[in-house]
Order: sequence, then C-alpha cells, then structure tokens
Amino acid sequence: MNSTNFMELALVQAEKAAQIGEVPVGAVVVNSDGKVIASAHNLVETQRDATAHAECLVLKEAIGKLNQKFLDGCDLWVTLEPCIMCSGAISYARIRRLYYAAEDKKSGAVEHGSRVFSQVTCHHKPEIYGGIMASKSARLLREFFAERR
Amino acid sequence: MNSTNFMELALVQAEKAAQIGEVPVGAVVVNSDGKVIASAHNLVETQRDATAHAECLVLKEAIGKLNQKFLDGCDLWVTLEPCIMCSGAISYARIRRLYYAAEDKKSGAVEHGSRVFSQVTCHHKPEIYGGIMASKSARLLREFFAERR
Repeated sequence: MNSTNFMELALVQAEKAAQIGEVPVGAVVVNSDGKVIASAHNLVETQRDATAHAECLVLKEAIGKLNQKFLDGCDLWVTLEPCIMCSGAISYARIRRLYYAAEDKKSGAVEHGSRVFSQVTCHHKPEIYGGIMASKSARLLREFFAERR
Repeated sequence: MNSTNFMELALVQAEKAAQIGEVPVGAVVVNSDGKVIASAHNLVETQRDATAHAECLVLKEAIGKLNQKFLDGCDLWVTLEPCIMCSGAISYARIRRLYYAAEDKKSGAVEHGSRVFSQVTCHHKPEIYGGIMASKSARLLREFFAERR
C-alpha cells in the first residue's frame, strides 16, 4: 500500500463516524511491515466521553493488540491534525511517523497552538507529514457541520 | 472534607501505585457535592500502555460512572502536575477545578512546557491550584526512583 491508500482507510473511518453523527475524524495504525493493526473513528457522542477521540482510541486498540507499552516502529494516519491530548498520547506511545490530512486551526496542536512536538518537555517526536489528502478530509468536516447548522 | 483530605486520598492512590511498581501518581475526581466519584493511579506497567496515566484513567472512570460526556462541576485532585496529554483530557472533560501537588519540570504542561491552559487553542480552562501537599508527593516520587537506580 502507498501513502494515499492508508489515508483513504483513515477517511473511510471518518465517513463511518459521520454516518452515526460523530465528527468525522478517522485514524489507522500501521506497523513496520505496512500492515494496518488498528482502525478507529471519533466516538465522543456514542461513548458519551469527550475524550474519545479517534487517535486515542486507535492507539489504545493497537497497544492492546500488540500487548506492548509502546508502539515503536508503528505509524499513525489520521484525517485531522491531532489536538493537544492526542498529540501527547502519540508522543507517549512513541509513534514513529505521524501522517495527517487537514489542519485544525481551532484545536490542532501540531502546527498550531501548543505545537506539542516542538516543546522541550516532549520526550518523543515522530516524523511528521501533514496535508495528505487534506482537501477530502476538510470537505467531509465542512459538510458534516454545514448539515448541523 | 477539606482540600487536604482530597489530596490525601489522591496520595493514597499514588502509594498504591508505588506498591505495585508503578510511578506513584494518584488522582481522584470529586463532584459538586464534595463526593469522590472516581479514584485511580498510574497503570502504565500493569496495563502495558504508555498512555495509562492516573488522570486519564480517573476521568474515564468518572465519565463512565456519571454516563455523561463532560464532567461539568467536577474537580480533579492529582498528586503531580499533569502532562500535556492529561491536561488536554482535563480540558475536554471540562473539569471545574484542577488541584495538583508536586510540579513536574520534566513533563508537566500546566506551569511548564506547553502551558496547555494558556493556549488560545484551549477551549476550557479549569481553575488551577498547584502545590497542595507538594512535598509529600515529591518525596514519594523521589523515593520510588531512588529505589530503582
């Protein structure tokens, strides 16, 4: 699979989220063999838990499946720039590479706000690739909120 | 119960963590009636999950118990300055007041590093009270690491 395919899988997750009324953000974790080991989308409304973001859920799932404390060598693909909480989780989980689609000016913490991975208190920084299939992800989000306003 | 008592309960959790080889950080969530509704400590080793910090665990527990998305009106008592991930979770969960004991110069994100709650991308900021029973918490941590070096 090439890069676009993994982001497409994350976007499929985001679409699933939209279908059940969740903000459309999806994520997958890929191991060093290029195999998808976990997929998740936003579940804030379903789980009635404001912290149930796609990234935190997919990291927990991957950690559980591998039964290891860290996700060394694994990559995270997510359709929106991670927030501060999820960026922290990405750092703790020792994700190798972070790929994300749309930027998030309001709550993003990678290239906005706290810029988590640039802080001296950040002890693990993944390689970061933003903007992959960004327009498709941004459109999904725009349409989702447009329908609800 | 007064302030000191709630932090003592959080410290009891931290001591429990130390007893099973977990970094001694403990937390409790107290509702607006002054009742402890959730208690947790660090479980990174036990759960083999680098994101299993006391604060995230206790917030999830409280959210689950109340079956509500946000913890409006609830306070969090924790024995160490929260990291960036946990500070994000505290903000999303809409904790009313954050009380913590020892500062964490290495990984703290309240008065160090990202200073999460001072960012424009932070959409909910609790009232913050640091330094409560700080020396007892700092001693617990110091002793824990001293034994392991």
